[in-house]
Amino acid sequence: MKVGIVGATGYGGVELYRILSNHPHVDECILYSSSEMDVPYTQSFPHLNNLSDHRLKNIDVEEMKKNVDVLFLATPPGVSSKLSPQFINSDVKIIDLSGDLRLKQKSVYEQWYKRECVEEEILEGAVYGLSELNKVDIANAQLLANPGCFPTATILGLAPVVKQKLIDEKSIIVDAKTGVSGAGRNASPGTHYSEVNENVKIYKVHEHQHIPEIEQALHNLNDSISFISFNTHLMPMTRGIMATIYVSLTETTTTEKLLDLYNEFYSNSPFVRIRKDNEFPSTREVYGSNFCDIGLKVDERTGRITIVAVIDNLMKGAAGQAVQNFNIMNGFEETTGLYFAPIYP
Amino acid sequence: MKVGIVGATGYGGVELYRILSNHPHVDECILYSSSEMDVPYTQSFPHLNNLSDHRLKNIDVEEMKKNVDVLFLATPPGVSSKLSPQFINSDVKIIDLSGDLRLKQKSVYEQWYKRECVEEEILEGAVYGLSELNKVDIANAQLLANPGCFPTATILGLAPVVKQKLIDEKSIIVDAKTGVSGAGRNASPGTHYSEVNENVKIYKVHEHQHIPEIEQALHNLNDSISFISFNTHLMPMTRGIMATIYVSLTETTTTEKLLDLYNEFYSNSPFVRIRKDNEFPSTREVYGSNFCDIGLKVDERTGRITIVAVIDNLMKGAAGQAVQNFNIMNGFEETTGLYFAPIYP
Amino acid sequence: MKVGIVGATGYGGVELYRILSNHPHVDECILYSSSEMDVPYTQSFPHLNNLSDHRLKNIDVEEMKKNVDVLFLATPPGVSSKLSPQFINSDVKIIDLSGDLRLKQKSVYEQWYKRECVEEEILEGAVYGLSELNKVDIANAQLLANPGCFPTATILGLAPVVKQKLIDEKSIIVDAKTGVSGAGRNASPGTHYSEVNENVKIYKVHEHQHIPEIEQALHNLNDSISFISFNTHLMPMTRGIMATIYVSLTETTTTEKLLDLYNEFYSNSPFVRIRKDNEFPSTREVYGSNFCDIGLKVDERTGRITIVAVIDNLMKGAAGQAVQNFNIMNGFEETTGLYFAPIYP
Amino acid sequence: MKVGIVGATGYGGVELYRILSNHPHVDECILYSSSEMDVPYTQSFPHLNNLSDHRLKNIDVEEMKKNVDVLFLATPPGVSSKLSPQFINSDVKIIDLSGDLRLKQKSVYEQWYKRECVEEEILEGAVYGLSELNKVDIANAQLLANPGCFPTATILGLAPVVKQKLIDEKSIIVDAKTGVSGAGRNASPGTHYSEVNENVKIYKVHEHQHIPEIEQALHNLNDSISFISFNTHLMPMTRGIMATIYVSLTETTTTEKLLDLYNEFYSNSPFVRIRKDNEFPSTREVYGSNFCDIGLKVDERTGRITIVAVIDNLMKGAAGQAVQNFNIMNGFEETTGLYFAPIYP
Repeated sequence: MKVGIVGATGYGGVELYRILSNHPHVDECILYSSSEMDVPYTQSFPHLNNLSDHRLKNIDVEEMKKNVDVLFLATPPGVSSKLSPQFINSDVKIIDLSGDLRLKQKSVYEQWYKRECVEEEILEGAVYGLSELNKVDIANAQLLANPGCFPTATILGLAPVVKQKLIDEKSIIVDAKTGVSGAGRNASPGTHYSEVNENVKIYKVHEHQHIPEIEQALHNLNDSISFISFNTHLMPMTRGIMATIYVSLTETTTTEKLLDLYNEFYSNSPFVRIRKDNEFPSTREVYGSNFCDIGLKVDERTGRITIVAVIDNLMKGAAGQAVQNFNIMNGFEETTGLYFAPIYP
Repeated sequence: MKVGIVGATGYGGVELYRILSNHPHVDECILYSSSEMDVPYTQSFPHLNNLSDHRLKNIDVEEMKKNVDVLFLATPPGVSSKLSPQFINSDVKIIDLSGDLRLKQKSVYEQWYKRECVEEEILEGAVYGLSELNKVDIANAQLLANPGCFPTATILGLAPVVKQKLIDEKSIIVDAKTGVSGAGRNASPGTHYSEVNENVKIYKVHEHQHIPEIEQALHNLNDSISFISFNTHLMPMTRGIMATIYVSLTETTTTEKLLDLYNEFYSNSPFVRIRKDNEFPSTREVYGSNFCDIGLKVDERTGRITIVAVIDNLMKGAAGQAVQNFNIMNGFEETTGLYFAPIYP
Repeated sequence: MKVGIVGATGYGGVELYRILSNHPHVDECILYSSSEMDVPYTQSFPHLNNLSDHRLKNIDVEEMKKNVDVLFLATPPGVSSKLSPQFINSDVKIIDLSGDLRLKQKSVYEQWYKRECVEEEILEGAVYGLSELNKVDIANAQLLANPGCFPTATILGLAPVVKQKLIDEKSIIVDAKTGVSGAGRNASPGTHYSEVNENVKIYKVHEHQHIPEIEQALHNLNDSISFISFNTHLMPMTRGIMATIYVSLTETTTTEKLLDLYNEFYSNSPFVRIRKDNEFPSTREVYGSNFCDIGLKVDERTGRITIVAVIDNLMKGAAGQAVQNFNIMNGFEETTGLYFAPIYP
Repeated sequence: MKVGIVGATGYGGVELYRILSNHPHVDECILYSSSEMDVPYTQSFPHLNNLSDHRLKNIDVEEMKKNVDVLFLATPPGVSSKLSPQFINSDVKIIDLSGDLRLKQKSVYEQWYKRECVEEEILEGAVYGLSELNKVDIANAQLLANPGCFPTATILGLAPVVKQKLIDEKSIIVDAKTGVSGAGRNASPGTHYSEVNENVKIYKVHEHQHIPEIEQALHNLNDSISFISFNTHLMPMTRGIMATIYVSLTETTTTEKLLDLYNEFYSNSPFVRIRKDNEFPSTREVYGSNFCDIGLKVDERTGRITIVAVIDNLMKGAAGQAVQNFNIMNGFEETTGLYFAPIYP
């Protein structure tokens, strides 16, 4: 197959390249960029010397339709809204890593993203690609909205207890922590080393655009859920997301029973690993891999559970899950080209 | 005055030394250690070359009673239980930075610390030294229990809304993040650079020994509060604590009104700084200083508030607050020798 | 005294403020910025809440001449070239932290800085302010060129053996390492957290503009020295410089004798600390302080010495040394307001 | 093939497992440990959940001879000296990642390692496995001494100019920088996060045991070389080594000509990447990969060259090169199972 990556000079794009250039079913990667043209890819990324002789190409929809089977959009907000509609009814499958196509309601997008939304009929046609929860629809998708990094960790952490209606639907609180690479490759005061190092910082308090995405997905699993509390913190590290989730149980249960439920729920999900009783994952333990690791524990004193879900934000939170969806969309084994170990330490 | 520091070779001890050696009312510091004896202090801490010609002394209660006016105990759990009782009815004032004397109930201590507690009459005589909330008792204390690092940030973050009974007393959830120096100077797998770097890790889930300390203090402010949910995360940084606090409001209010309440509540507290609307503190902004910075925001969608409190765990979370209490206990201005700016960046 | 800081919103400027706002002989700090005007200083630096109620002022030479006794220029290259000449023959003393006035030869400046130089007569009037080596001239300076960060560590590390002519004058190799704050507060791809973290990077190979500054100073100590080899590396840390220096001995000697020489040479230099035999300083050991720590060792096998000098680049490498010079220029004790301990850990 | 890893719970061992468990010619990995026995490997390394169901086995030479084709020793100094001799004349090929077998002279080993050496006849039989320089001997080796991390970067950086006799043989100075993982997985004061973070530290000045290894290899390339100056610095990062090398040219040449020489010299070395003129590699650019990247530049002013060589210390500096040698020893393509991209960022 021939794949194209739009936004190849971003962190999501170069991570896609790392995976796809070794994927057994990918014959060719074509790399597109709006900012640079006809320069060697290794000029932006010298770590790829010897591994890539690509030159960056300009974005040209007609050329893409001719040369590409699957197109990955690893682009800033707003680009996919413009680009994706041009591929409707073409033979090109689109996997959009941006947030443009994830929300089903135009008004909700515009409220949280504070920019214009694509037409609602495009949104309707887009399949939300949380691989573990939506495999059948993904398999048939032509236009796929790849989930956000925080939603991936949060929804996977909550899905079993939400679907089983074991928790108070108003009680969900998610305290998320992320590495800096999630903010992208552009330099800004907020990503300056001296500002991030030896620092923890909360940002977008109550206003993160991933909130409605999580709420929409949880509502689909249990329609009595309408809101969550959610905050994000910037950590002094490059990769990794941890979602620490607090929920109230509606009836008494044990950690052991819940772990059984989670293991059962994810029994066909090779990238979700449930930890044993009294074990919790750390972000390092999924570094560079497509795994989502989950640990949990009942707190008898308070009637709450603490659930911890970790991912590598550039892998399961972006490029890795995109390739997982690429596999599902094309009838390949879900783990193809993706089932490698985390780098440790 | 003459002060003694027991546990001078730990991180808490050396931070005490940094402050006290510049304190205008301290004539002499005597440094005690159980692990090293009669060696120059600069052998452990070469960064103090030219600044200290102390030699470490062995712990000797009778010698201390003769030579010391105030004794700081910056020691591991269990040491103060043995040492403090020997100074009852002496002229030496004790400021204990360990957790041994903070809880009023022996059984609670033994349940959470999993070690034997000092006699309850000793506990009764110990004053809990959260400087901002307990100034009168601190001023008269002979035996002072200096608060834990997490309790300091959490209680200061919650006190105004708890005391005013503005929040659902069962709704308190605290997600805490800390730098590694809080784990002390001893090497262990958990403090190995390669294990901490580029990693976020949750630990002691539902079991942190600071939980009952926080609950006791909140209960004193509002006796309908009996429990909280509380978790701690290890961050890849050396200093700094952030407590992200989630509570449900019992009635509608605004961020502005709550900020007014906090500013009023802490109007006589020079080390507590309340941020403006839409501003939140980061840990870096108190690095090396004795400040506790607090930001908050009402979430109308969920009826909850997010409160963020940050401190430097070795300063306001340990040595800094100990000296603040030392000032109060001795009738000095609270800020004496302590009111310096954070190091930034 | 009244002092002004131009470039107050940079890292050098805010570090100057940290020191000067606590300096016993400074009555007032006036803060100037070309980028922001009439906004509270705490808007740029919330860590200074409660500690500063300054508003940033526009640069106005006439106003400065009226209100300021000493003016610190913590500005990018080129600004001082424009500003300093306007204060010649005024009552205002100028301490310039930029590189504009350090080199005595216009052509050398233009070759290495690749920008126009100030008139040579201005250069001639400027005193090079390496405090330890030039105290008499500094005491009488009206226009002071504060040394660069790398030159400070390197020259202090080399001065005794250079002055005593103990080393081969063509053999000097300096391998320098620096934290990121030296690159200033502006965001750029090179200071992006994700690019700096978990990375070591060499830059400006053979071309660093501090090379001629070091060569000029060494030549002044021993005029047979005309060049050095010098490279700089960016470390994943915020503060700190280490210069690892390799030189060939012209005759056999011992580590002990050299340490004696260094201790003698710096016997009146309170901020230079010579380590004992077999001890070497690390950057952490001077963090936040004005010390320069030096260790050295003879290698009998190769006939070379390894000399290691460390400083905090924002302190002894910039703002700290500027205040040290301010003290000397104004007849205060050299250590006034500056003699505090490093932050450790 | 069946391979065994002794020291599987160390950082070198787990990195070997990461590679070998995906190697197309490895049918089975057997994991040995002296410290733990019959426990699941994932107990030490939860990041390998789902990827390993191994249990750690005790070291038993007879069992190994029966079950293992190639045995990797990723063990502390001294272990291989005991273990390797027991496999002489067996069918098991040994790849020793420790320093025990690298030096050809017993007395040199004992002088630098300060421990007893194996018999000299064993040393004579061991092949030094710097893959790029010694391919024929490696192909025929039964007992292979895998190079140290610093020697690998240093020797690869120097080999072309040393072999071509372009440099003054007494002029070699190597300033090396390393991440903390090189110190192994054991906790010690020197690897405590709070001591390493925000710090650069020189160690083992003039005394590093890799010095004679480098000297021996350079002497083999050019027998007029008898010593080098070499120092190592600990950086605040987990992985990565940079060797910054300073040498004097014996005759005038250009950067361009030298780059041509290097490209020619390494034209059959798929893991060595020579950078273009004016480009230098950073450690991040080889992170997690087996590449050694080299950049260099002539300094006309001083007549010296600066050469920079970077590797991932756990990959090309240990486990990666061991597998590269495993490939060569067994007649596989050198890059088999090893030719993957660095993780970036």
